[in-house]
Amino acid sequence: TRETYERDGAAIYRQSFSIIRAEADLARFSGWEEKAAVRIIHACGMVEVAPDIAFSQGAAEAGRAALVAGRPILCDAKMVANGVTRTRLPAGNEVICTLDDPRVPELAARMGTTRSAAAMELWREHIAGSLVVIGNAPTALFRLLEMFDDGMPLPAAVIGMPVGFVGAAESKEALIADGRVPSLVVRGRKGGSAMAAATVNALASEKE
Amino acid sequence: TRETYERDGAAIYRQSFSIIRAEADLARFSGWEEKAAVRIIHACGMVEVAPDIAFSQGAAEAGRAALVAGRPILCDAKMVANGVTRTRLPAGNEVICTLDDPRVPELAARMGTTRSAAAMELWREHIAGSLVVIGNAPTALFRLLEMFDDGMPLPAAVIGMPVGFVGAAESKEALIADGRVPSLVVRGRKGGSAMAAATVNALASEKE
Repeated sequence: TRETYERDGAAIYRQSFSIIRAEADLARFSGWEEKAAVRIIHACGMVEVAPDIAFSQGAAEAGRAALVAGRPILCDAKMVANGVTRTRLPAGNEVICTLDDPRVPELAARMGTTRSAAAMELWREHIAGSLVVIGNAPTALFRLLEMFDDGMPLPAAVIGMPVGFVGAAESKEALIADGRVPSLVVRGRKGGSAMAAATVNALASEKE
Repeated sequence: TRETYERDGAAIYRQSFSIIRAEADLARFSGWEEKAAVRIIHACGMVEVAPDIAFSQGAAEAGRAALVAGRPILCDAKMVANGVTRTRLPAGNEVICTLDDPRVPELAARMGTTRSAAAMELWREHIAGSLVVIGNAPTALFRLLEMFDDGMPLPAAVIGMPVGFVGAAESKEALIADGRVPSLVVRGRKGGSAMAAATVNALASEKE
């Protein structure tokens, strides 16, 4: 209630995670997968999202290893980049979002695609072994698969969680079906920058 | 599918809004309320959130008027501030998030509360007639009500959409029950920076 609300940030986290573990069925997740699932649920306030969480075999561990190895985190949206808690990162990892690069609008016009998809052209020098995080644009996730087809070096893992009504569900199914790179997905229309950043934050630290 | 996905950003918005209007029951919303409801649903990919959307009488119009009048937008989290599309704002409105102010950690320790709640102490000079946007921390929303009790000048409207398991639902019900300021809320555990920013973006421009 208004008078007695919990004001201790650490206690709020503890209580939240405890409620999530009591209410959600997380039995199929182990280790880093379970930590990621808990934080994804925490980010959206919905234990009912648990069945939609799909991690490919070893994907959580691959994402974790990339972070420990100091690889960069490539984000499709500034909200994703801002959601990554810098103090949790194990190696001062660089968090890169190229959406505001001045070359992007012209690239997007030339490529006939969204700015989100065009911005990824500027990822090429950073992507090998990185952790890619798509939390907003289905076009970015579709474009990523095309760039793999074109022979771009592969990231260590892809967090694929675009949200919405046009292409989101389809782009995530395409990522899973592609299978070239370990993937961490929330299937269907649900997703977004908060869930995507929460996945990074979960893999970033042993600390809950 | 992977080969034929929609690449035109404007067409993606149009199709998304069309799907939302076909699937969601928005009959109880009118004018700016309807625009806000559509963008809230767009932000989370869930037409099923429609029944949880609660706007107090005139709140959407009050938020719209504050933006047109050039009042600032006060955000509890950087993800909220980053989600506000600057080019939609009708008067180059200032978007303020004080969470990273160097005074905040000490304030939070002294006040015995979260950084999010403490950061609002630095809103006092900006808040009269502003649009307040709480998209992350229930403690911030509870604290806002305490600051109203203490005689702080009132904002024009409050977008109250903290997310989560501890205090989120309760803080939003407290805002509605308080009633001193027009409120735009998503009831229950659901909410977050994307929905909160989407509400601002809806009220910011006639343009869909």
